[in-house]
Amino acid sequence: MEKIEFLNNGSVTSVPGFLAAGVTAGFKKSGAPDFALVYSETPASFSGVFTSCTFAAAPVLLGREKVRQGGTLRAFAINSGNANACTGAQGLENARKSCDIAAAKLNVPASDVVVASTGRIGVQMDMSLIERGFELAVPALSAQGGNDASRAIMTTDTVPKSVAVKIRINGIDVTIGAMTKGAGMIDPKLIAPHATMLCCITTDADVDNEVLAGLLLPCAQDSFNRITVDGDMSTNDTVIIMANGRSKVKIVPGSVEYDLFREALLTVMQKLAREMVMDGEGATKFVTVKVVNARRREDAVLAAEAVANSLLCKTAWFGNDPNWGRVVAALGYSGAEFDPAKCNIFYDETPVVRNGGDAGTPECDLLDVVKKREFVITCDFGEGDEEYWVWSSDLSHEYVTINADYHT
Amino acid sequence: MEKIEFLNNGSVTSVPGFLAAGVTAGFKKSGAPDFALVYSETPASFSGVFTSCTFAAAPVLLGREKVRQGGTLRAFAINSGNANACTGAQGLENARKSCDIAAAKLNVPASDVVVASTGRIGVQMDMSLIERGFELAVPALSAQGGNDASRAIMTTDTVPKSVAVKIRINGIDVTIGAMTKGAGMIDPKLIAPHATMLCCITTDADVDNEVLAGLLLPCAQDSFNRITVDGDMSTNDTVIIMANGRSKVKIVPGSVEYDLFREALLTVMQKLAREMVMDGEGATKFVTVKVVNARRREDAVLAAEAVANSLLCKTAWFGNDPNWGRVVAALGYSGAEFDPAKCNIFYDETPVVRNGGDAGTPECDLLDVVKKREFVITCDFGEGDEEYWVWSSDLSHEYVTINADYHT
Repeated sequence: MEKIEFLNNGSVTSVPGFLAAGVTAGFKKSGAPDFALVYSETPASFSGVFTSCTFAAAPVLLGREKVRQGGTLRAFAINSGNANACTGAQGLENARKSCDIAAAKLNVPASDVVVASTGRIGVQMDMSLIERGFELAVPALSAQGGNDASRAIMTTDTVPKSVAVKIRINGIDVTIGAMTKGAGMIDPKLIAPHATMLCCITTDADVDNEVLAGLLLPCAQDSFNRITVDGDMSTNDTVIIMANGRSKVKIVPGSVEYDLFREALLTVMQKLAREMVMDGEGATKFVTVKVVNARRREDAVLAAEAVANSLLCKTAWFGNDPNWGRVVAALGYSGAEFDPAKCNIFYDETPVVRNGGDAGTPECDLLDVVKKREFVITCDFGEGDEEYWVWSSDLSHEYVTINADYHT
Repeated sequence: MEKIEFLNNGSVTSVPGFLAAGVTAGFKKSGAPDFALVYSETPASFSGVFTSCTFAAAPVLLGREKVRQGGTLRAFAINSGNANACTGAQGLENARKSCDIAAAKLNVPASDVVVASTGRIGVQMDMSLIERGFELAVPALSAQGGNDASRAIMTTDTVPKSVAVKIRINGIDVTIGAMTKGAGMIDPKLIAPHATMLCCITTDADVDNEVLAGLLLPCAQDSFNRITVDGDMSTNDTVIIMANGRSKVKIVPGSVEYDLFREALLTVMQKLAREMVMDGEGATKFVTVKVVNARRREDAVLAAEAVANSLLCKTAWFGNDPNWGRVVAALGYSGAEFDPAKCNIFYDETPVVRNGGDAGTPECDLLDVVKKREFVITCDFGEGDEEYWVWSSDLSHEYVTINADYHT
């Protein structure tokens, strides 16, 4: 397998043929950038995965429709500050109108535009701000604009999240760039046409829509769908991938090129997923919860998600408390089928629970692990060969502060 | 329906024929009472419901066995400070030994004793403390000991929780007394032979084991199983009911007496369930989440539980934030099937969401509701006639403080 090279300061515009901008349209009272535009100089093939929330936001409804219709994409616009969710027929109309505005300003078909929103739920979009967003962003589009764009999509994020990798396929450089945002309301279950997490991925590989769709969902399942900050899934989660084909490297299933590209794509998406958890609201810890040797995959999934979402585990992590009783309690109520007497638990490599009881490791050794910024909890069911892992954060005072702040 | 009279200062010993004591055996470093004993002067019929956690504690395993075996009960002993969970064969042996000690000191068959434990998971019981508990509690047993017993079972509870009611059936007084504890690790799913919530219910009605079992589970489903503090279910949840028959009022299914008794029992269990949520770790709010007019009951259950357990909803409640976007997001990811466009939401009687969008109620009116110590969120799906409700608390800084405190 060839090397995946991370580019310094990489972003969606590290990919030749993609321009981007991030501007202040006025959605945020703070005056911080709140409108991002990613533009492909040529029609790009594309795919998308979206929230599975029943109350899916207007732009999600439109985005799904566009993915079903197929065709090409030229622009992906994202505003931060208003989610355009629970806004009914007018919300949908406003999302369509945003595409029309983009089309006019960019001189592309409205059907080649996808929009996404994040922010407050239940408030109608102030369309004058959308107008203003495009007015400012279109002239600002540039091949250096990726990092500006990633700053403009932040909400409670403390750092912008962009990445780009380069791989060589048959002697030719293929680039994948991406940006994401999301620090709260994060427990994505992306489904084909699911946090508010928003992600835009660009590439110059030559991949058609159907192949992109076949790559995007499994990669989302092994990245964004594996993370949880607060267990709350959003109405607006959207991941859009655009491929402009400029490298002329054709990606078709069953080829070596496909495997290379898939690995690079997964690497990009996992890196951003990790960064989202690291930057989760109030997070001070990054904890990988891993269930191994389960009889059925679904048992591993239930068990890992229960521990990763347990308030008692998350507060213990915050408190540097090695209390494994909370881990076994969560495994026990998860609904997973396993034999407690065969269950072994490790904090990193340190044995914690052996055969369902205390492994007898001195507490100071456990403390050494749980005091770290990042550690792995492995729950070994000793019954089969199925496994699953989830990336989670701790639950801190800062989380409560961020989310209890009156902000209606 | 005759009146249910709450007794002043009511407790498990408000019921004639039941004695109780609460003493300091030494489990708690603080020196606070930590060992409770409830004793029936005559053999009592009984039943129990327990945690559905896979890692059920040793006393839960024994308790289930005893419920299956049937017979009578004379004593229910509870220690606070050690959960005797994940303690393997030795833990089970220690639980049996506790029954033996009780039997010897009380001069009753060991098979007529049930024990329950709450506290730290994974630590073997110091049997000398159990010895000491019985040594001190047996001579202290008294008809006034109910309130002492309820104090001895507290962990992070800030107040003891006891209640007793009297009903008249056919001109005869029948009393039901009860005590409970539990402020964290509270999301009980009690199943026949599930929180760490511990509850002891006494009555002088004449009810056989099978009838008690038939009453206890449905009443638990409409009380303890409806509450959540942190969504974490415990390894030790135990509810034991004992009936000594002293009133000579026979309770058999299909009779008026049965209906009267059932209502009184449910009243007692709901009162304690409410008190547990009110006294939930760090709780400042008591929120009833109600889903009405759902097509299927399971949709109502999924939806109500998702809102009741949402960290974003719980922190908003703590912050007096009427943000209904978090409520609709939780409904949307709950897995419940409903039409968002038909969904109406009320805070108490105040419309918040109409047909899936903003009902237009001025924010100050919503604030008036969510600032209250106690309010009801009603989600009306407008599609059928099924409903479900859950009692929940908010998520405060104090919750994080309590549970992030290093206490291994």
